[in-house]
Amino acid sequence: MDSSMMLANKQVVLKNYVEGYPKESDFELRSSMISSHIPQGSKGLFVKNLYLACDPYMRHRMSHHISNDVPLLASFNPGSVIIGLGVAKVIKSADADFEEGDYIWGMTGWEDYTLILNTNGLFRIKYTDVPLSYYAGILGMPGLAAYIGFNNLCSAKEGDVVYVSSAAGGVGQLVGQFAKMKGCYVVGSASTDEKVHLLKSQLGFDDAFNYKQGNDLAGALKSHFPKGIDVYFENVGGNMLDKVLLHMNLYGRIAVSGMISQYNLKKPDGIHNLFCLISKRLRMEGFSEFDFRHKVPEYLEFAIQLIREKKLLFVEDIAEGLENAASAFVGIYHGRNVGKQIIQVSTD
Amino acid sequence: MDSSMMLANKQVVLKNYVEGYPKESDFELRSSMISSHIPQGSKGLFVKNLYLACDPYMRHRMSHHISNDVPLLASFNPGSVIIGLGVAKVIKSADADFEEGDYIWGMTGWEDYTLILNTNGLFRIKYTDVPLSYYAGILGMPGLAAYIGFNNLCSAKEGDVVYVSSAAGGVGQLVGQFAKMKGCYVVGSASTDEKVHLLKSQLGFDDAFNYKQGNDLAGALKSHFPKGIDVYFENVGGNMLDKVLLHMNLYGRIAVSGMISQYNLKKPDGIHNLFCLISKRLRMEGFSEFDFRHKVPEYLEFAIQLIREKKLLFVEDIAEGLENAASAFVGIYHGRNVGKQIIQVSTD
Repeated sequence: MDSSMMLANKQVVLKNYVEGYPKESDFELRSSMISSHIPQGSKGLFVKNLYLACDPYMRHRMSHHISNDVPLLASFNPGSVIIGLGVAKVIKSADADFEEGDYIWGMTGWEDYTLILNTNGLFRIKYTDVPLSYYAGILGMPGLAAYIGFNNLCSAKEGDVVYVSSAAGGVGQLVGQFAKMKGCYVVGSASTDEKVHLLKSQLGFDDAFNYKQGNDLAGALKSHFPKGIDVYFENVGGNMLDKVLLHMNLYGRIAVSGMISQYNLKKPDGIHNLFCLISKRLRMEGFSEFDFRHKVPEYLEFAIQLIREKKLLFVEDIAEGLENAASAFVGIYHGRNVGKQIIQVSTD
Repeated sequence: MDSSMMLANKQVVLKNYVEGYPKESDFELRSSMISSHIPQGSKGLFVKNLYLACDPYMRHRMSHHISNDVPLLASFNPGSVIIGLGVAKVIKSADADFEEGDYIWGMTGWEDYTLILNTNGLFRIKYTDVPLSYYAGILGMPGLAAYIGFNNLCSAKEGDVVYVSSAAGGVGQLVGQFAKMKGCYVVGSASTDEKVHLLKSQLGFDDAFNYKQGNDLAGALKSHFPKGIDVYFENVGGNMLDKVLLHMNLYGRIAVSGMISQYNLKKPDGIHNLFCLISKRLRMEGFSEFDFRHKVPEYLEFAIQLIREKKLLFVEDIAEGLENAASAFVGIYHGRNVGKQIIQVSTD
C-alpha cells in the first residue's frame, strides 16, 4: 500500500537566464503540488527543506553556457526550481543509509519539499546540538571550502600576513579564524562599516577595512599592509585581485576560492599585474570544495568541537520564508548580507 | 709592480630609458679605454668577454622603476654599459677561486673587457668540450630556468599534454625536450614557419604551430589541443595566456617563466579568463632561476651528459660583434632570432 501524499509545495523558479546582476524579477514563486511518492526502483528520498544556502557560485548556473563540463557550474533550466545546498528532514526514504526523521545536507531544491532521486553527495547529519542551519554554512560547503582552501593551498605559517577579501562572508569569516589559530596576522575587507566592526570585534581579525570607503582601494591596501601580504585568500576577483598582486610579498600564495565581483559581468575585468607572479615568485591556485567531499568527516570532527567550545564562531544572516529567497539571493551581490546568507524554509 | 694595462674597450651603453619596444637608437656603441688594474682590497676579476646572452627579462631593466625590490630587475643607469649574462675569460684574478685563463659565466658587461668587483654568482666553467656559448644558454640561466620550471612547477607525468609558447627560444626549446623525456605529448608555438619546422624536425616536438598565422589564435589552440592542455609553460603572457586558460584541462598547471609579449607595453594586457583557475582548479606559479643557482652543479651534470650524447640539442642564433648587439637585442622582441640569441664578442 502506497502511503504517498500530495502536498502543497511553494517553489522558487528561475524564469529566464539572468543577464548582469540578478534581479528579483528573474525568479518566480510558484505554488504547486508535490507527491511524496518515491518511484519504484529508485533509492531516493522525499525530504522537507529547512535551510537553503545563498552561495555566490550559483549565479553561474543562471547563465546559459555552451559547455557544461564543470558539473557544479552547469546551467539551470529556466522554468525549473533552483538547486542548491540545503538542510532537510527525511520524510520518506528508499535508501537504507537514511531513515525517516534523519536530517541531511546536500543539494536540494528551493521549495518546501523535494524528491531527491540520487542520494550521492548527501550527508546524514550526526550532531544536532548545533543550529541545523550550520550545515548550510560552517558545517557544509562554505566550511569545507575555508578548511581546504586555507590548509591545502595557503602554506601559511606563524607570523604570516594573511588577507581575506569578502571576509564577513560564509567562507571568509572562517578563513580568518583558521588563520588566527595558525598564529597569522589577519586582515579582512568587507563592504560596510558594520561588517568591518564585526570582523574586528567578534571574529578575531587583527585588522579590517571597508574597501568601498573613499573609493581608494590602492591606498587602503597600502595603509593596511605596511609589510605586504604573504597569503591572499581570494573571494572577490577583478580589480581587487589586480591591486592585491602589487602588494604581495616574495613567495606569496593566493588561494582562489571565488570571484564574486565578476559573476555578473558580461566580460570579466582584465587583470594587468600578473607579471608579479614572476617578479615575486607567487603561486596562485584555484580549488573547489567539491573535490574534497571525502574530507567532510575529518572537517566535521575538527569544527564541531571548536564550535561547542565557542572557539570557532559563525555569523549567519537568515531570511525567513521562500517568499524572501529571491531578494536574499540578489542581496549577496550587493553585500547586503551580514554573515552567511541563509534562507529558512521551515524550522522543522 | 703593477702589470696592469690600458686596453681599448668597445661598450654597448643604454642611452636613455626605453619606452615601448626597444630601438637600436636606444643604445650607443662607445669606444673607450679600460685599465686591467684590480683595485687593492677587492677580490675581483678582470675578464675578456666572449659571449653575451640577449635575455628577454633585460628589457625591464631598461625602464625606470620607482621600486627596485627585485634585484635582477633593478633599473639600469642610462649612460652605463648594459649588464647581462655572459661567458668570459679571466685575464687577471684577485679571487683565489679563479685563475688567469679560466672561463667563467655570470653577470658581465656588454663590452670587450669587464672589471667584475663582486664574484658572487660567477661560475667557473669546468667542461670546455662543448661550445663555450652554451654557458650563455643551455648551460646557463635559460637552461636552469627550463630545468627548474619544468621539474619543480609543472608536475608533468607521462601522457600529459604540454604546451610551450615561444618554443624555439632559449628556455622553450629545452622545456619541450625535457617534457618529451618525461613521455609527454609536446606542442610548441613560435612566430614563423621556419621555427615551427625546426621544432618538429629537429627538436622533437610532437606538434607545433605558427601562432601568428591567420591571426586566429583561438582556432589554432582549438585545433592543436583536441584533448586540452595539462601543462602550460608560459613564456609569452597577454592574449596568449588569456586564450590558453580556456583550453586548460582540470587540475592543469601553468609555470610562468616569462611574458615577452608584455615587456614593451606601457600598460600590460588585461587577462579576463582567470575564473578558469576555479572552474578547472588550476595552479599557476611564477619562478625565477635566480632562486635556484645552488642547483647549477646538479643541472650541469644532468645536461652535459645529454649534450655529449646528442640527446639534448640547443639551437643558437649568434650575432657577431658588439656592433651588432643592439640590433640582436631589439630583434628578440620581434621574433627575428631562430633559437637562443647570443652575441659573440670574441672567440677567445
